[in-house]
Amino acid sequence: MLRITSPANEKVKRVRALLEQRKARQAYRQMVLESPRLIDEALRFALRHPDYRLAFAFYAEPTPRAQETLARLQAAGVPCYEVTPAILRMCTDAETPQGLIAVAPIPELPWPAAPTFLLLLDRVQEPGNVGAVLRSAAAAGAEGVLIPPGTADPWHPKAVRAGAGAHFVLPVRRISWPELPQQVEGTALWLATPEGERTYWEVDWREPVTLVLGGEAAGPGPQVRSLPHRTVRIPMARGMESLNVAVAAALLLYEVARQRGWGRVAGSEGG
Amino acid sequence: MLRITSPANEKVKRVRALLEQRKARQAYRQMVLESPRLIDEALRFALRHPDYRLAFAFYAEPTPRAQETLARLQAAGVPCYEVTPAILRMCTDAETPQGLIAVAPIPELPWPAAPTFLLLLDRVQEPGNVGAVLRSAAAAGAEGVLIPPGTADPWHPKAVRAGAGAHFVLPVRRISWPELPQQVEGTALWLATPEGERTYWEVDWREPVTLVLGGEAAGPGPQVRSLPHRTVRIPMARGMESLNVAVAAALLLYEVARQRGWGRVAGSEGG
Repeated sequence: MLRITSPANEKVKRVRALLEQRKARQAYRQMVLESPRLIDEALRFALRHPDYRLAFAFYAEPTPRAQETLARLQAAGVPCYEVTPAILRMCTDAETPQGLIAVAPIPELPWPAAPTFLLLLDRVQEPGNVGAVLRSAAAAGAEGVLIPPGTADPWHPKAVRAGAGAHFVLPVRRISWPELPQQVEGTALWLATPEGERTYWEVDWREPVTLVLGGEAAGPGPQVRSLPHRTVRIPMARGMESLNVAVAAALLLYEVARQRGWGRVAGSEGG
Repeated sequence: MLRITSPANEKVKRVRALLEQRKARQAYRQMVLESPRLIDEALRFALRHPDYRLAFAFYAEPTPRAQETLARLQAAGVPCYEVTPAILRMCTDAETPQGLIAVAPIPELPWPAAPTFLLLLDRVQEPGNVGAVLRSAAAAGAEGVLIPPGTADPWHPKAVRAGAGAHFVLPVRRISWPELPQQVEGTALWLATPEGERTYWEVDWREPVTLVLGGEAAGPGPQVRSLPHRTVRIPMARGMESLNVAVAAALLLYEVARQRGWGRVAGSEGG
């Protein structure tokens, strides 16, 4: 049986670096999965992608639900280390840890060759919000999400948790500002703003589109506004000032999906 | 100047009871507002409702933004107590406290006489989710939200924070299960479930409706299913299993608003 009892162990240090440092996540191209459900998603992804292998897992006093996933990890040949409860606590900041975490490669999903349905997240600074948006975007059938500088790391542990599996189905690409025009070429840029010229359900969304959502505080910034674009707004009753960014994203994305006819949304398995 | 330096002070105890105990919130019909923005909403509400008076506020090392609100509180004659930073920390669990909290009555908003657009939240156990749904419901122009047993307290501090002001514009009513039939009389009950018989945008939402959303884990429960109802689903691409409940609520609520024509949504101030 594999056991780790020292916090100075190299694998413990790796997990903590991945949790705490964007640089570490970028250098190793790995992320931490902090729930049995997410680990199950990774195992399902690995079944479809033989080159994808989970690096290792830690467990300590796993819940019954976590034990099921642990058995699947072991059956898949993933090295599973029993650690002390104190070490496991050091290796997760989930609110309801279930006694099992895993380290897995960041999935490399193919970017669409001629995108028709992209989302760009500009200045969304809270990683939980970024993950929640990815969850909405994956469900709505978006083809890819662009993350420019100034938006939180989509592989931050809070973003991975809030993504609820989106990270295994939705291509996510970090870009620099100079890359933006090329990345959105062939799509119409529509920025969501409180002063948008059209209500979102009045726009014809059947042409290729890149939706741009900004952070709740600041909205889309000057770099994206410097490109040709149009603006769209979500009406709000009773003087409410704003919506959560994941809610705003879902409203826009699902309106695109609705207008295009669900069956024709790329990647859709829905009815 | 009003100063409090002892954690045993009665007002400190009141704040902690309101933060921690549903019973205290129900007994005193008060809630804690933990951000300058929410306190500003309460002050605006008080301007429109002369009977509504904030009880008191605590401050310690307020940020510049909080100082603005503090000045407004003082101008409105709300008793403002300077407390020690340690006491203020005891009196908030906000992630980014700004050095100012207030205690305010739970607003008593008039319930619609003949409702056409209600939401029922069944078995939504996380107070932050309840608050996020209220935010979406207020923005979409819902006329009221019903909270049966088994759903988190809508005046829990996390729900108030996530509501982002919704608590001052949207009538929220706790009900017992026996009251349910009477409360939804005259509206069609539509339950959101993954197996819903119709996609949500295929339903004609122009008739009076009560939308029912369940918790992410369990969905709507047996009590509401025992009433005559129909079911609706939100399609999801790529095998995503679920959406955040506030996202699901927003999609359904805004589809109702869209179909009814925004100008005709009760309470709407939008275009």
